[in-house]
Amino acid sequence: MKIVDIRDTVVPIQADIRNAYIDFSHMTVSVVALITDVMRDGKPVIGFGFNSNGRYAQQGLLRERFIPRLKNAEPDSFLNNDGTNLDPEKIWQCLMANEKPGGHGDRSVAVGVLDMAVWDAVSKIEGVPLYRYLADRYRGGEAEKRVFVYAAGGYYYPGKDRSALKDEMQSYLDRGYTVVKMKIGGAPLENDLRRIEAVIDVVGSGDRLAVDANGKFDLDTAIAYAEALRPYGLKWYEEAGDPLDYAFQAELANHYEGPMATGENLFSMQDARNLIRHGGMRPDRDILQFDCALSYGLVEYMRTLQMIEENGWSRRSCIPHGGHQMCLNIAAGLGLGGNESYPDVFKPFNGFADGVPVKDGYVGLPDIPGVGLEAKSGPYRIMKKLADT
Amino acid sequence: MKIVDIRDTVVPIQADIRNAYIDFSHMTVSVVALITDVMRDGKPVIGFGFNSNGRYAQQGLLRERFIPRLKNAEPDSFLNNDGTNLDPEKIWQCLMANEKPGGHGDRSVAVGVLDMAVWDAVSKIEGVPLYRYLADRYRGGEAEKRVFVYAAGGYYYPGKDRSALKDEMQSYLDRGYTVVKMKIGGAPLENDLRRIEAVIDVVGSGDRLAVDANGKFDLDTAIAYAEALRPYGLKWYEEAGDPLDYAFQAELANHYEGPMATGENLFSMQDARNLIRHGGMRPDRDILQFDCALSYGLVEYMRTLQMIEENGWSRRSCIPHGGHQMCLNIAAGLGLGGNESYPDVFKPFNGFADGVPVKDGYVGLPDIPGVGLEAKSGPYRIMKKLADT
Repeated sequence: MKIVDIRDTVVPIQADIRNAYIDFSHMTVSVVALITDVMRDGKPVIGFGFNSNGRYAQQGLLRERFIPRLKNAEPDSFLNNDGTNLDPEKIWQCLMANEKPGGHGDRSVAVGVLDMAVWDAVSKIEGVPLYRYLADRYRGGEAEKRVFVYAAGGYYYPGKDRSALKDEMQSYLDRGYTVVKMKIGGAPLENDLRRIEAVIDVVGSGDRLAVDANGKFDLDTAIAYAEALRPYGLKWYEEAGDPLDYAFQAELANHYEGPMATGENLFSMQDARNLIRHGGMRPDRDILQFDCALSYGLVEYMRTLQMIEENGWSRRSCIPHGGHQMCLNIAAGLGLGGNESYPDVFKPFNGFADGVPVKDGYVGLPDIPGVGLEAKSGPYRIMKKLADT
Repeated sequence: MKIVDIRDTVVPIQADIRNAYIDFSHMTVSVVALITDVMRDGKPVIGFGFNSNGRYAQQGLLRERFIPRLKNAEPDSFLNNDGTNLDPEKIWQCLMANEKPGGHGDRSVAVGVLDMAVWDAVSKIEGVPLYRYLADRYRGGEAEKRVFVYAAGGYYYPGKDRSALKDEMQSYLDRGYTVVKMKIGGAPLENDLRRIEAVIDVVGSGDRLAVDANGKFDLDTAIAYAEALRPYGLKWYEEAGDPLDYAFQAELANHYEGPMATGENLFSMQDARNLIRHGGMRPDRDILQFDCALSYGLVEYMRTLQMIEENGWSRRSCIPHGGHQMCLNIAAGLGLGGNESYPDVFKPFNGFADGVPVKDGYVGLPDIPGVGLEAKSGPYRIMKKLADT
């Protein structure tokens, strides 16, 4: 078999919102189509990938370095041993040839996009959903039928008052979610506390609400929030400080006994390992949010899972960032603790398969080969157009 | 004043070499020209920048995000208070708008290229060499007349034997260098020791030779090398392990009392801070090699300098990677411990001004406004063509 073509395009995402750190209105997504010569149901198998939100499309890096490397490689160098399918690990080595260690940003997103397309193709060639392929290959066949998901929202919008925030959160409950997340740090502490109380009014208790500062706080502010948040018994307190400030995170743990979460802005096993080693994170309660689609893909994410387990963590502590089907498959196939969901933002790449509802805070996966991207009409329309070009 | 245009191009660098990690033969460099409407000597002031070696050209990121942000910004938002010159800090804030924290790679190179062009333009508008501008503005006028530089080479080439290695090192001495650096880790330990001894034969003593593993070693190998290297009394032992593996570096310090050096693959103040906090580096002997041109430029590098001083380090411990005139100006103007030099590789961007020889291991700077890029004919030919396009 061989790779016939690799195409990419860039699309804007619909996100007229801001978190505590950035304005998402200029955010873009790279979409790639990896076209193989393997035929299934009379058509060539095509793997699709896209990047997760929070970082930008990577057309430049894809076209300058990563797509040419894969196109120029000898097919034998990246196939499995019997030549019947792609080998994601070998492809990863090909993509990262002549890349120096360190400096894990942007290129980690470009490689993540391609890695998603590779796994999509691999499981389509095997004729099974990706989560089933992962469970069979790496977990003795044990797959989760459904995955815990929580509704991430609660962004600041100009003119959005507490009543609108409550309506938003009620709508998540109405759509089957049991846990929600909201932004903090974009308003003064006292205002944020009123916002938090308003949401707890809706969801019923603090342990159904996570709060996310998006790395904005200095240590004094983070501690002030920690002390103010403590009585609410929240689901978790997320990314209080700079994602690379491990000493900050470790110190904050001295001021907050409840669960904390971070990791969405660490893009390699090495960075994740530094959080585990130096960040004072607590395996019995804290949450790790590394997002494979921003972080060199599933090949690298499996290294991260191995690393956390070697350090006494359970993969159940992993609830990835991003709200996309790739991490949902990983959660189901490899047994993570759950997955983020963006019911209303980052359209059309938000959310999971059409017609698979969230129920009691859990969601299932479609029974089609691959990542399941064909089961979501919005992004699939873009992907199909790219493949048909 | 305003920015009239920002242009960029990509050029290959001549480097048919490999270090212990990558093959440089496909390496590329981004060059930018930042054209202002300020007139000096009858011509518009143009700031030039390029990226340092080891990472690739960044045309995609420059054109997708960073150049448009600066072009679209209101001029008043990035000028100094009296509107007579650019403000590098304000420009940095403009470039990094809507970039999330963490993920410091690739974009740090793109911003570094632009930052160099900004400082070049700023000092040209002031009519002084950049090192003079920096000394006057940040150091009470005290500038170094000359900067310690060492000759980085000793790469592995197919067919290169110890005799060729000795000839190479002799040629550096002949050109005025007193300290040289060679690669290790591309050959078995015993072979590397013979190579090291051959070079010491030429340079006269171990403290005139630094060795660089380019992050390739696992801990056992790094310790084996440490024990084997100890008797030679080397200038330093550089980047033994993965640049982000701070625990590795800290453990290695338990096995090697001599100076160690690292940092060229850490691209932000936050990453540098983690090395200082967690890497077991010793302020009384070790060397910090952060390269501003790969790391968001001088604006970020000044944050790094402040951070190391707050942590008990001297800026004399900084000998940046890269061998380019930007870091040479910083070394002279801000009082660093020296600068790398590549006498023979990474052409035409290697080395310093034409006609300013290295003498007794030190080099001076040309007395022209800006970074001094016009005083080096090879790269300037490329820059001038870009500006005249």
